[in-house]
Amino acid sequence: MNQTISFQLKSPYLIFLGDVTEMIYAKTGAGIAEWCPETVVGQLRMEGCKLDLGLPDMDIAQAIEAGARSLVIGVAPAGGSSGDTWVPLLNQAAAMGLDIVSGLHSDLADIPGLTENARKSGAALINVRRAPANIPVATGSKRRGRRLLTVGTDCAVGKKYSALALTAAMNARGVNATFRATGQTGIMIAGGGIPVDSVVSDFVSGAAEMISPENHPQHWDIIEGQGSLFNPSFSGVSLGLLHGSQPDALVICHDPLRSRVSTCPDYRPPSIGVCMELNLRCARITNPDAVCVGVCVNTSGLPVSERQEYLQTLSAEVNLPCVDPVLDGCDPIVDEILKRLGN
Amino acid sequence: MNQTISFQLKSPYLIFLGDVTEMIYAKTGAGIAEWCPETVVGQLRMEGCKLDLGLPDMDIAQAIEAGARSLVIGVAPAGGSSGDTWVPLLNQAAAMGLDIVSGLHSDLADIPGLTENARKSGAALINVRRAPANIPVATGSKRRGRRLLTVGTDCAVGKKYSALALTAAMNARGVNATFRATGQTGIMIAGGGIPVDSVVSDFVSGAAEMISPENHPQHWDIIEGQGSLFNPSFSGVSLGLLHGSQPDALVICHDPLRSRVSTCPDYRPPSIGVCMELNLRCARITNPDAVCVGVCVNTSGLPVSERQEYLQTLSAEVNLPCVDPVLDGCDPIVDEILKRLGN
Repeated sequence: MNQTISFQLKSPYLIFLGDVTEMIYAKTGAGIAEWCPETVVGQLRMEGCKLDLGLPDMDIAQAIEAGARSLVIGVAPAGGSSGDTWVPLLNQAAAMGLDIVSGLHSDLADIPGLTENARKSGAALINVRRAPANIPVATGSKRRGRRLLTVGTDCAVGKKYSALALTAAMNARGVNATFRATGQTGIMIAGGGIPVDSVVSDFVSGAAEMISPENHPQHWDIIEGQGSLFNPSFSGVSLGLLHGSQPDALVICHDPLRSRVSTCPDYRPPSIGVCMELNLRCARITNPDAVCVGVCVNTSGLPVSERQEYLQTLSAEVNLPCVDPVLDGCDPIVDEILKRLGN
Repeated sequence: MNQTISFQLKSPYLIFLGDVTEMIYAKTGAGIAEWCPETVVGQLRMEGCKLDLGLPDMDIAQAIEAGARSLVIGVAPAGGSSGDTWVPLLNQAAAMGLDIVSGLHSDLADIPGLTENARKSGAALINVRRAPANIPVATGSKRRGRRLLTVGTDCAVGKKYSALALTAAMNARGVNATFRATGQTGIMIAGGGIPVDSVVSDFVSGAAEMISPENHPQHWDIIEGQGSLFNPSFSGVSLGLLHGSQPDALVICHDPLRSRVSTCPDYRPPSIGVCMELNLRCARITNPDAVCVGVCVNTSGLPVSERQEYLQTLSAEVNLPCVDPVLDGCDPIVDEILKRLGN
């Protein structure tokens, strides 16, 4: 993949936290600090910022001195800020040659002065929500390499986290595995990828084929899922990603407290068994050998005393390892992968 | 639906055939002439054009005199022409106040002089391949009115033709039915619609909800399907359209001679039974009462002597009316709809 057809971000990063006051608006920055701390030199906090990612505080000059090549906007402009207060610092960073990386809905080019400052210094303005041009139509052709896709009973049930945790667990076991990003935070963590929900619908499967290209037969791509086949708003994205990924293995992600589908309150999420059955049915159209290898559950909403019992009961029911990746890691699922699919 | 969020074309049309020499490049013009002759004043053929849609030949002044409000490009610029030879006539039409309607891949604004001529006369340049902005995310909420969606064992198996033929047959029987267009030719025939395969993937189901909005409880929307759940290139479009349409009824479209999936030669199309089963399984996520009411087969590739036997055998197999809509019309399917879903 090259820059004309997908994002390749320049690390190390300076994470910009602006003047945001609540952690909920800093999911991107927090994800980067958690999953790729080695790509981060520090955090830049403006006056009034109440967050702390536990990184060294730096201004722009210090960050450049420390090797930073990109300023990554790690927060959404909410929680008290319109983002207007950020303009001088973003301009300073661009003028001093840092690429500006954003996952905001608004366009970096609309920030007064930013385009001009970036042009003069040679810095790039990169919006990771914007899909690259020239994505081809999917061919469906079989390609070498193994692939795992995280799928869900709904949106926002831990598909990105699970893919990252699985990648880490596989690498720790000596399996050659690469996280493949399909959403904005994942792209910043991975340093590349395609925001598939921003791709024109005819090219979603093609984007999935690009994200996880042919590879060494024993190499695993661990692909971040999007949406759910059972979410009436986004199911098309999910099926295109499923067919283009041609996964050998699926991991189901689930939130046991989710009583309504996130964007569609008239709907209930499916059971894990039903979710597994339809995903396998559809996956086997492009990979007849697709199997399900485990379930990742976000148990944070359950009483601590009930979590292990919930996972054990579920595991007996679906006859697969069921873990909370945050609490337990993904080793039991890696065992299942190695047992059933070898390496 | 209004102009800011979807296409509304101004009829009557003058159909522009350029200097194209082969009928295969005039599918759009031929479709309009077949399905909505009442919206057409005539055809404009340049020197060298070898086509004839059986419409009155007119120049631009004559067409305007006859009431034309739009020039519709009814051909693709192939079959000997690059389209460059069309430039003077398109400019003349725009200068004289005709909207220019195009389904070409290239942008009308790239035709030298056209934007300026259209601006001066107040004419619009409309590319029906371009999806409108401001399509909302689908809600999945149940809405009044009945809906039928044509789905297929592959792309290009007659989903548009079948939807048009079903609409005509229902109206002829006194059922209030409206054809809903999801592709460029369909949009030109209907005078409006959304090209769903050009919509950003997150909004495909939302586009489907817009195309077939709430309506009178006895009114039928007959929605043009796109792609196929079994086509690995475009299945995401198909599922988004299926979920957003919330169809009460599905009609399967099939080409018995299609041995390979159109864009994916490594794949074979599914049997009609398998196609029906997966489409119903997925449709019932947003409409638990969805049923299949018939099969439309393109029998043109079969020997004439075998066509009726093929349809009869198939009908016994799937226990549903099976027709070739071109040869037989869709009356048996309308009977099935009225029998099973009443009106």
